[in-house]
Amino acid sequence: MLGNFSYLNPTKLYFGEDSLEALKEELPKYGNTVQLIYGGGSIKKNGIYSQVMELLKASGKTIVEDGGVMPNPTVEKLRDGVRIARENQVDFLLAVGGGSCCDYAKAVSVSVHCDEDPWEKYYIRFEEPDCKIIPVGCVLTMVGTGSEMNGGAVITNHEQKLKIGHVFGNHVMPKFTILNPKFTFTLPKDQMVAGIYDIFNHICEQYFSGEDDNTSDYISEGLMKSVVHSSLIAIGNPEDYEARSNIMWTATWALNTLVSMGKSTDWMVHMLGQSVGAYTNATHGMTLSAVSLPYYRHIMPYGLAKFFRFAVNVWGVDTNGKSKEQIGKEGLSRMESWMKELGLVMKLRDLGVTDEMLGGIADGTFIMEGGYKVLTKDEVLDILKNSL
Amino acid sequence: MLGNFSYLNPTKLYFGEDSLEALKEELPKYGNTVQLIYGGGSIKKNGIYSQVMELLKASGKTIVEDGGVMPNPTVEKLRDGVRIARENQVDFLLAVGGGSCCDYAKAVSVSVHCDEDPWEKYYIRFEEPDCKIIPVGCVLTMVGTGSEMNGGAVITNHEQKLKIGHVFGNHVMPKFTILNPKFTFTLPKDQMVAGIYDIFNHICEQYFSGEDDNTSDYISEGLMKSVVHSSLIAIGNPEDYEARSNIMWTATWALNTLVSMGKSTDWMVHMLGQSVGAYTNATHGMTLSAVSLPYYRHIMPYGLAKFFRFAVNVWGVDTNGKSKEQIGKEGLSRMESWMKELGLVMKLRDLGVTDEMLGGIADGTFIMEGGYKVLTKDEVLDILKNSL
Repeated sequence: MLGNFSYLNPTKLYFGEDSLEALKEELPKYGNTVQLIYGGGSIKKNGIYSQVMELLKASGKTIVEDGGVMPNPTVEKLRDGVRIARENQVDFLLAVGGGSCCDYAKAVSVSVHCDEDPWEKYYIRFEEPDCKIIPVGCVLTMVGTGSEMNGGAVITNHEQKLKIGHVFGNHVMPKFTILNPKFTFTLPKDQMVAGIYDIFNHICEQYFSGEDDNTSDYISEGLMKSVVHSSLIAIGNPEDYEARSNIMWTATWALNTLVSMGKSTDWMVHMLGQSVGAYTNATHGMTLSAVSLPYYRHIMPYGLAKFFRFAVNVWGVDTNGKSKEQIGKEGLSRMESWMKELGLVMKLRDLGVTDEMLGGIADGTFIMEGGYKVLTKDEVLDILKNSL
Repeated sequence: MLGNFSYLNPTKLYFGEDSLEALKEELPKYGNTVQLIYGGGSIKKNGIYSQVMELLKASGKTIVEDGGVMPNPTVEKLRDGVRIARENQVDFLLAVGGGSCCDYAKAVSVSVHCDEDPWEKYYIRFEEPDCKIIPVGCVLTMVGTGSEMNGGAVITNHEQKLKIGHVFGNHVMPKFTILNPKFTFTLPKDQMVAGIYDIFNHICEQYFSGEDDNTSDYISEGLMKSVVHSSLIAIGNPEDYEARSNIMWTATWALNTLVSMGKSTDWMVHMLGQSVGAYTNATHGMTLSAVSLPYYRHIMPYGLAKFFRFAVNVWGVDTNGKSKEQIGKEGLSRMESWMKELGLVMKLRDLGVTDEMLGGIADGTFIMEGGYKVLTKDEVLDILKNSL
């Protein structure tokens, strides 16, 4: 734990199969007009929509509907959400869905009372909010992004072929989040595993950086072991409550700032994945899985001690008679086997990426400087080629 | 993660060697009159007192001194602290010290505006505060109790020979805590190791309970490995900043409710240790170390799967050709070797306990019901005899 830092996470979490009831306690704390944010309508099929509507009506709220949030929320959708909030003088934003809905709600929350265009202000100039922020609550139905307990909000601009995340401060974090593992049972398997890999990779992004001894890395190893263990149960039986509940809890703690405290972080896999996402609109977790192993194999020589530790502590690789490099490689092979067992996309080609796109994807990839090797543009292109 | 629960921790943490500066940011948020709480005066020797006083004066506060908080704060001291706060119409309580000062500050905070006697109300009848609570801030100078980010407040009544903890809700938790690892450098070695064992045992108390698969147990294993690793560096060089910072951070997360989420917990070692403390006024961590191994060896047969897991995941015990029981025992032996290497007290006799006291200590021990075996009074006495 080197360096100075501060930690505060104000989001209240309600966890468990009865947790939606907490809306009765939370809704009265906020104003009368609620913008109900959701995605493509799956919550209408599985009954969550009607449960939430009933609780909103019972607490006497005026409900303004804002459905159709796409998996990668666009800047056009964001501008439209801001218009809805303004026209209806909305007091509270309730996101019911996955990370996309939570991200979108936060982006709307900091933009409604702001005169400037949110894309320009938050995603190009990376400014901080200097206007009133509308409070946000989340009911999570898909697990992975950690958006339910952090300040992150990723928005995609298809015209500019950019997918950019802004991590806002803790005043933008959801006031509360409802985590009911049963709400995730009906998710299609490919979305479930994409979310699981998103969790795992969030931890990797914070783990594969720095040379110091750090308690955060020990916590990260615990979280990684838990998600690997539970994921193998969940792919066999998606309705295993215990496994799905562990996955849900791990997702929250994988990206609510805890495991990055007092250490440097990487985030290059997300930068590569987000650029792929801007070109293909592919599922976020699958863009990460497709580029991960080529990236980690490329940087392993620059951070061998951590890859050795990863192999031993997370994957239980036997060290007997092997070099550190062999052990590190074996750790990544175990990770690869696990990823294949989950059924993750392992090649960019399977996401619709073509040879012709690679140059543009490389150009759209932000280069981060916290990992074991600051990549050159040529290295980015090589990694993308190896991921194809 | 079985069962329903909610999670919120509102304490803001400032960590690092420059973290005392945060008082400049925090103090203006609270009223003018500050009750400055500290212990036996070591902060006057190491310079922390004058640094804090300077910052208090610079922010224009009226300072009311309340020193002399003892390692096990007594009910008489609590009543006196309440009197000081009332007489001076104190707005804010600033604890500068270890867990005793933080615990005491919280106990004062819920008692000043309460008409009833705090011992009767909070420690005998276990009521919740129904009066105005004075906000508390902490500057930590000794690590172990986790009091800096939780609602716990242990008070000792020597007359009644009772040492009782009340865990208040999150509105009683400190508003902020300053964690500067350098402030712990000058602590005598026996206090350092007592604090380290307190951390480790807090994790054990939450870990050795329940049969379910729980992410909290994976996080616990990570925290235990981190504190074991760093403790062995710190006993060689107490001024190793990296080791002391990891120990400090682990202490906070070992007992701020995170690793107990969604699971049952034990707490019998603390019940035994606290009863010893009420009889001997011995250092808290040493009362825990003296009773731990007899207790864990006694309950291991009732929770063998977890003791097996502890041996493998925390202590790296090789499982080859051994029974689960042998592996569990080997884990506890490794733990014993580590405890001896730290120089912890391993026998109650070394804390001044005599044969004659054992009956009274057993009578004063609260029996908890969350562990692997609900003890009978005879078992409590046996464990104490084995600890003598």
